[in-house]
Amino acid sequence: MNAVGVDVGGTKIAAGVVTPEGKILDEVRYPTPHSPGTLVETIARAITEVGDAPEVGGVCLAVPGLVLAQENKVVYSPNLRAVEGIPLKDELEPKIGMPLTVENDGNAAAWGEFRFGVGSEADHLVFVTLGTGIGGGVITHGILMRGAQGSGGELGHVTIQATGPRCACGNHGCLEALASGTAIGRRARELAVEHPDSALGRLAARRQILGEDVTELAREGDEVALSVLDEAGRWLGVGLAGFINIFNPEVVAVGGGVMEAEELVLEAARKEVILRARPPSRDLADVKVATLGPKSGVLGAAALARDASSREYLLGG
Amino acid sequence: MNAVGVDVGGTKIAAGVVTPEGKILDEVRYPTPHSPGTLVETIARAITEVGDAPEVGGVCLAVPGLVLAQENKVVYSPNLRAVEGIPLKDELEPKIGMPLTVENDGNAAAWGEFRFGVGSEADHLVFVTLGTGIGGGVITHGILMRGAQGSGGELGHVTIQATGPRCACGNHGCLEALASGTAIGRRARELAVEHPDSALGRLAARRQILGEDVTELAREGDEVALSVLDEAGRWLGVGLAGFINIFNPEVVAVGGGVMEAEELVLEAARKEVILRARPPSRDLADVKVATLGPKSGVLGAAALARDASSREYLLGG
Repeated sequence: MNAVGVDVGGTKIAAGVVTPEGKILDEVRYPTPHSPGTLVETIARAITEVGDAPEVGGVCLAVPGLVLAQENKVVYSPNLRAVEGIPLKDELEPKIGMPLTVENDGNAAAWGEFRFGVGSEADHLVFVTLGTGIGGGVITHGILMRGAQGSGGELGHVTIQATGPRCACGNHGCLEALASGTAIGRRARELAVEHPDSALGRLAARRQILGEDVTELAREGDEVALSVLDEAGRWLGVGLAGFINIFNPEVVAVGGGVMEAEELVLEAARKEVILRARPPSRDLADVKVATLGPKSGVLGAAALARDASSREYLLGG
Repeated sequence: MNAVGVDVGGTKIAAGVVTPEGKILDEVRYPTPHSPGTLVETIARAITEVGDAPEVGGVCLAVPGLVLAQENKVVYSPNLRAVEGIPLKDELEPKIGMPLTVENDGNAAAWGEFRFGVGSEADHLVFVTLGTGIGGGVITHGILMRGAQGSGGELGHVTIQATGPRCACGNHGCLEALASGTAIGRRARELAVEHPDSALGRLAARRQILGEDVTELAREGDEVALSVLDEAGRWLGVGLAGFINIFNPEVVAVGGGVMEAEELVLEAARKEVILRARPPSRDLADVKVATLGPKSGVLGAAALARDASSREYLLGG
């Protein structure tokens, strides 16, 4: 059967109807409303538009934040407060006439990469998204590792430098505080002050530097921008080495906006993995860029809607 | 059926025949020989002695170090070099006349606590052993998380302070380098120099301080010894918080020799977990002392020998 995957982001909602082979037959996008009522209406409309097709059997929403998967509820979502606490299943199912589940967006994207992307040959996949924040998801022994409440896989909030910089979550030294796009932007602004004659320094004199500027200037050869990405890559590698020691995965896939820098970040990460991960896990794990890009959420959510039987098994329901 | 669990340690070998309910019917112990031939002979003798009982259907060896579970081989074992590379299954099965598998000791002990101990009501258990080193194992969604090669669950070698002290593994700032018995002993020796009038300082003037001395002096109320355990507990908590964010477990169990200090370490660990782990995972996870003590290896290994069908499922074999 086909299924609908919905990627509910902080700025846009993307809904797609997806075949069992991972082909998106139809897709719509809407800007994300930030009032609860309009948010539910817009999600319902998006689902109805693409779901009005033959053999569509279910829907899964991929939502950022802390998700109680068993209750199909979002507990905490700093970039999408309107979704917090809404009984999404109860409100949406009558409107769309199909079964609906809710999943963390990192977990859904990991499942997408596992079913259709960089992890499709693997049974053990660690997936990390580097964007404004850091999220992710883990497939171990072929199952999506949700944990007891469906809140597992919070890979961005693992401490890698306890005395490190403050994170958006309030703690110090999370992976997110050291290797996210936000961390890259902050570090670049610091180094721009120290190196006013670099391309980074000259740009900083004109306007605020963002994470994406750093990749662009690094590609043009600016040494300071390159060093910012190298440093973020080293921190990423510290985190990935821990995940490799914990999970012994075949593939470690890194996605998200920061991955436009590709090898400028990943090469440094691999160096740190070689130092810090242990054989044989270190030698097995293939650290590479995720392949589905921004489609991983819609594809993974649709696959999860279809794989509801394994979901029920995993949740003990 | 009954099964034999063998805990192959750096100083002794313990073999026990165990019922499906987790009762040890008979047990023997031998000092661990450190030449490969005698090691295999001694393991075989221990198994034969306890295994000569009705309805014994299989054996599992719990071995410290990096284990390739699919090949039933130990790749690296710094405290038991004699076991490295031996084809244990091929050498032992003809001698004992039963099927045999090999598992990492932390994974086996985790499975013991999951089946018969502190995690017997849980589906998601993180188990950490604090001894000379730090090991552990994870049960997620009711399965033992071995990873692709059976080398997963290396919880002691996750970086929590990248610029921290050097670890026995060669890296810096592993959990093991900051919260193990070895780390406690090292930190106590440092503080004994700074506080020569403390009980710790006075003992240090007579002989080298070991990890277990610190617990004893802390129980007697020595402030310096208490501060060493508190500090180790905080570092432990940094690591546990990461595991809680990753796995969303119901139970986090801590065992091993250092746990004779019990709440002197765990109370500090829980404080750090509250700071660093995220709700709802933080609020669910019950951080407590493991209950099987040194029997967890024999019990867990025996249970794994019996649960061979799930093992085959997990290893995809």
